[in-house]
Amino acid sequence: MLFAGENLVAQGHPNLILTKAGVAEIQRSKNSAPLFEQVLELTKKEVDAEIEEGIFVPIPKDMAGGYTHERHKRNFFILQKAGNLYQITGDEKYAIYIRDMFLEYADMYPTLGLHPTMRSYATGKIFWQCLNDANWLVYCSQAYDCIYDFLTEKERQKLEKQLFRPLANFISIENPKFFNRIHNHSAWGNAAVGMIGLVMKDEELIERALYGLKNDGLDNTMLDNDGGFIKIEGQSKAGFLAQLDFSFSPDGYFTEGPYYLRYAMTPFLIFSKALSNNRPNLRIYDYRDGILKKAVFALLNQTDAQGQFFPINDAQKGMSWKAREVIAAVDIAYADFGKNTMLLSVAETQGKVLLDQHGYEVARDLAKGMATKFKQHPVAYRDGANGEQGGVAILRKNNRSDGEICAVMKYSAHGMGHGHFDKLSYALYDESGEVIQDYGAARWVNIDQKGGGRYLPENNTFAKQSIGHNTLVVDETSHYEGSVKKGEANHPDLYFFDASQEHYQIISAKDRHAYPNTEMHRTLVLLEDETFRNPLLIDVFKIRSPEEHQYDLPLWFLGHLLSTNFKYATQTNRLTPLGNNHGYQHLWEEANAQPTTKNAQITWFERGKFFTMTSSVVPNDELILARAGANDPNFNLRHDPVFIQRRQAKSSTFISVIESHGIYNPVAEIPLSPFSGIEAVNILFDNDEYTLVRIKHKNGKAWIFMMANQDTANTSTHKITVEDRVFAWEGVFALKIEK
Amino acid sequence: MLFAGENLVAQGHPNLILTKAGVAEIQRSKNSAPLFEQVLELTKKEVDAEIEEGIFVPIPKDMAGGYTHERHKRNFFILQKAGNLYQITGDEKYAIYIRDMFLEYADMYPTLGLHPTMRSYATGKIFWQCLNDANWLVYCSQAYDCIYDFLTEKERQKLEKQLFRPLANFISIENPKFFNRIHNHSAWGNAAVGMIGLVMKDEELIERALYGLKNDGLDNTMLDNDGGFIKIEGQSKAGFLAQLDFSFSPDGYFTEGPYYLRYAMTPFLIFSKALSNNRPNLRIYDYRDGILKKAVFALLNQTDAQGQFFPINDAQKGMSWKAREVIAAVDIAYADFGKNTMLLSVAETQGKVLLDQHGYEVARDLAKGMATKFKQHPVAYRDGANGEQGGVAILRKNNRSDGEICAVMKYSAHGMGHGHFDKLSYALYDESGEVIQDYGAARWVNIDQKGGGRYLPENNTFAKQSIGHNTLVVDETSHYEGSVKKGEANHPDLYFFDASQEHYQIISAKDRHAYPNTEMHRTLVLLEDETFRNPLLIDVFKIRSPEEHQYDLPLWFLGHLLSTNFKYATQTNRLTPLGNNHGYQHLWEEANAQPTTKNAQITWFERGKFFTMTSSVVPNDELILARAGANDPNFNLRHDPVFIQRRQAKSSTFISVIESHGIYNPVAEIPLSPFSGIEAVNILFDNDEYTLVRIKHKNGKAWIFMMANQDTANTSTHKITVEDRVFAWEGVFALKIEK
Repeated sequence: MLFAGENLVAQGHPNLILTKAGVAEIQRSKNSAPLFEQVLELTKKEVDAEIEEGIFVPIPKDMAGGYTHERHKRNFFILQKAGNLYQITGDEKYAIYIRDMFLEYADMYPTLGLHPTMRSYATGKIFWQCLNDANWLVYCSQAYDCIYDFLTEKERQKLEKQLFRPLANFISIENPKFFNRIHNHSAWGNAAVGMIGLVMKDEELIERALYGLKNDGLDNTMLDNDGGFIKIEGQSKAGFLAQLDFSFSPDGYFTEGPYYLRYAMTPFLIFSKALSNNRPNLRIYDYRDGILKKAVFALLNQTDAQGQFFPINDAQKGMSWKAREVIAAVDIAYADFGKNTMLLSVAETQGKVLLDQHGYEVARDLAKGMATKFKQHPVAYRDGANGEQGGVAILRKNNRSDGEICAVMKYSAHGMGHGHFDKLSYALYDESGEVIQDYGAARWVNIDQKGGGRYLPENNTFAKQSIGHNTLVVDETSHYEGSVKKGEANHPDLYFFDASQEHYQIISAKDRHAYPNTEMHRTLVLLEDETFRNPLLIDVFKIRSPEEHQYDLPLWFLGHLLSTNFKYATQTNRLTPLGNNHGYQHLWEEANAQPTTKNAQITWFERGKFFTMTSSVVPNDELILARAGANDPNFNLRHDPVFIQRRQAKSSTFISVIESHGIYNPVAEIPLSPFSGIEAVNILFDNDEYTLVRIKHKNGKAWIFMMANQDTANTSTHKITVEDRVFAWEGVFALKIEK
Repeated sequence: MLFAGENLVAQGHPNLILTKAGVAEIQRSKNSAPLFEQVLELTKKEVDAEIEEGIFVPIPKDMAGGYTHERHKRNFFILQKAGNLYQITGDEKYAIYIRDMFLEYADMYPTLGLHPTMRSYATGKIFWQCLNDANWLVYCSQAYDCIYDFLTEKERQKLEKQLFRPLANFISIENPKFFNRIHNHSAWGNAAVGMIGLVMKDEELIERALYGLKNDGLDNTMLDNDGGFIKIEGQSKAGFLAQLDFSFSPDGYFTEGPYYLRYAMTPFLIFSKALSNNRPNLRIYDYRDGILKKAVFALLNQTDAQGQFFPINDAQKGMSWKAREVIAAVDIAYADFGKNTMLLSVAETQGKVLLDQHGYEVARDLAKGMATKFKQHPVAYRDGANGEQGGVAILRKNNRSDGEICAVMKYSAHGMGHGHFDKLSYALYDESGEVIQDYGAARWVNIDQKGGGRYLPENNTFAKQSIGHNTLVVDETSHYEGSVKKGEANHPDLYFFDASQEHYQIISAKDRHAYPNTEMHRTLVLLEDETFRNPLLIDVFKIRSPEEHQYDLPLWFLGHLLSTNFKYATQTNRLTPLGNNHGYQHLWEEANAQPTTKNAQITWFERGKFFTMTSSVVPNDELILARAGANDPNFNLRHDPVFIQRRQAKSSTFISVIESHGIYNPVAEIPLSPFSGIEAVNILFDNDEYTLVRIKHKNGKAWIFMMANQDTANTSTHKITVEDRVFAWEGVFALKIEK
């Protein structure tokens, strides 16, 4: 045991998150932190109103979105706030409120069976799933810590015996499926048990939280509600430290993606904070070379220019830096991870701080004008606990004004139950939001009318399928044939990443497992050139197969189609689905075309901007315009458009260029540069070894990309002759400009 | 002649819009007006960059959106600005730039035939339509005025002989169809001819501008490009004063709607300003009891809370207070119409001012902190020159926080060529935008890719049709059978309007002409009650007909359908259009249902809010969910949803209640009040004389509306007995609350 012999009674209360010393400093000088004072006043107002309304501890009954669910959820948020208010203001009404509500919970809890909904793989008691019961305990253990000294010994005994300890046991011993996984749900479970253990100074609970249950009786075939596996083969560790070992890649990337990392950050950070206060010898912040700090910065960086998280895997769009969990992460990271002043500007955007010493420090330093701009940066995150399971790369470059173009390419591991079949897919953003969208999840979180707020059937049948993403689909079949098991067993691999060049950034990755006997190799280049108003995205998608297949390359352009350079036939009078399975059944086929030139071009309009994609096409390619919404009996899907390039071939290469070239303001009604500047996109040379692409502008300038497909050595020299011209370069990739 | 004997040579130059005295005051004290200084700097930067680039006067060739069009358009804007810069800064480079460009125009103009596009009912020379040529002259006459004294006599002669006078004659004498109408196009024509006449002191042009062409040879059958009539029967006057007489209702309402009033305001105000400077005896600002001032305020008031114009008739959405024309209107109105400080807050929103003495005054008084909030108010505007052709009513009420619910009902005259077949239609807004939308026009103004920026075919076949609006359609046929001629000959009538009550506002209007032998009577009530988070909209639509018909009442709810209280059958695998004509061919039928209860409810979600419509239904009603986009070969339409209530009946009454009841933020993911509070909507009593409606909340409270349908006298007393209960009230309308 790491902590044997440590003195558990060294500190008094509060010491879990808020500390005695923190309270003293806040009380001494909160005038110097106006944002903190503002939060204090708002929180008082909010909690006072709740106290005024009275205490409601209803018998649990509803799903998320329903009354009892939302009421209990509100209760734990308010209790945590009331605890901090009691400490900071000294006003006993807050302590009384918490005590009285806790006592009602303590009376009710022993009477509860499992929640009547029985819809979860791990049904809770207060809520429909153990997860929410764990949320309750994470927040309520803080409230308990804050009023610990206010309570009588008898009150404490009653609460611990009837409520806290049984609840902690319920979500751990009685629910190993929930507690003993490597998963964000379990991180909440571990934190909940550990935090109440720290408050109660219950060594057994703390050990259980840190190291998991010894014998969980779980096997490798069990699934959770999202179709994810409970146990991963060959991985038997559990508990909080194992979560830190296995949930993150060495870069702090979280395999479920940023939407879930945001959610998981709370238990990770908050329990770590509690451990740092109460178990300093554990040096939790240094664990795995500072994995928590890396995770916080990776989280903040996986955002568009507005601070909205990339909706990788299952994710509801709109989640951002402003989330409650991110506010907590930013404040704790600022206070405890070296006072990085970029975090202050994020806090400024958030406009809120924690009502504790971390929030106080942030508010104080903001008031001192210490904030610096948070600069999101291009990076290739590795996925997998060992960093060897592919990854996610972000390319981003500014234009001449405040704008930005940002491409996110995903070649990561499957992402467990929340993973999508989207190997080598990408999404594109500008400073105002999505340009080429990732659909996200088919879910309306907590909105009762849509399936009780849970994942909708269309999440499996459409949102997770490959055709719902910007990546290649072979023979109308999703990657790994849509099997989570196969998905979890494989991953693409990084081929090459370089964000160090002045004029371009590049990411290149390969997949050999999504389809049998088939290799996919995608390269994205973000090119900056004075010719273009905005950085240009060049997409080279190579596929290698010994047999002929049908290849579909969808582009989920977001906006209204303005024009194409090809004639299409529109289904004006009758719409039918594009296919029968793997998501195709959800696409209405609206129009199709056969290209007659070497390049196909579509131009669309969104948020006052003109965008054009130009792609190289070959005779017999089919061009399809479709829209989501078919076979959607309950109107669960957004009716978003997609452009699909379809080709019958063995090995083949798709080249596309995406240009944000013009703007239009409906107030001025004057279009600026509404037409694409690209004249032609050609493949100069293409075989297994090398690919050369030429992009020509109407002004005569041209860019030639030269790439070695099988050799990533920087020192290798390459030379090929194309139509009597010699192209020679060193390293994987080179760019040549012709004027 | 009104002006015979007036001394035309009293003032020097400039005196058209910018005046000598104005320049002197600006130069004396522009430091006291930071916004003005800012505009001055930005304008210098903009014009200097143009001067740097050089002068481009290309041979006219392109449609709107194309190079020559946009270049000539840019030229006139820059020339006007350069003129003011010359006067304000005294820097001759601006005068030289104007002179040189004018001389190039003077060399080119005599060589021009009609513009090669030949697409307009009145083709221009510099542009594809006379309208744009007139725009050019309105702006360029100001530039000419500013450099008049800088030019040599010989230069002036050349410009006037080769450019200005021929252009003025071309758009008047040579294009009576364009010049001699009552229409916003002609207002530009009149202003252009009058303004250049004032600069050149050409009495004949001034007279022509004010009083029109004497013999225009026009007849009543001629149409413009929008299908509007050139001449209105029984109306023979023309010229600028006739525009003032006939374009506006006595309240300043403009029959084409606010989008076009915004556009027309420039020639109206700017020529009036020029007349006020140069023909003070005309007292143009007092004309028709101050019609210009009324028009400016009516324009500003026909906006949602964001300052975006209601898209009545043909209108591109997004046009707002921030438009160039509105900036000019606000500045001139502030300076010349009594210094109404509410205008300053609009100017603040605009963030720009005119680069002349009006803009200077606004900026100066803004800097003094004199701005007061512009309060949009409920009002019923009369339409028609005599105010007797129906009108448009706006109901608007705030909620307890900063929110607003605003309903706009249209019972106006047809609105000429830009009118829609939308009698008694309405649209609903909240503080963040549209809730129940008016589709607006099927047009992408100036965007070449979409039909050269002109009205698209779907504007006629869909956007103008009745089913595209929130109003009743009988037998799948648009109002007036879609005939502009019939539309222009008729109009609905106001029945009752009252915005003076504390708890409700009401508008009620009748139509007897849209369908033969049929009367439609719609009443909207905006109800404020502490029970509701936001004011509630109640819609009572009575139809009276001796024969059985099919009635369709569409609701263009904007957002994503969340739920319904009825089971519907969705077309999951195949979509077909809802009908064949009158806009129905453009609707995909997505689902339909037969209600089994007395109320049909749909709930939708948009911009983080939950909305519910509850309507009374009868057995055999059909409920249809459809979406625009069918028979749209070029993807010109937005794929927006609509809910249609369909009923077979003779006389019948539709009751609907719309409630904005809940909110949801994707960052917090906690829905607040996601369910409607309405338990039931019933018709208690309904005949030709009286209609009684009861709306019941889940909390037990109920509201009873009692209305006399044939008697608007405030003093009448009414009494009816319904199931032994006696209802008695005085006046047209009464509200009774039951708890």
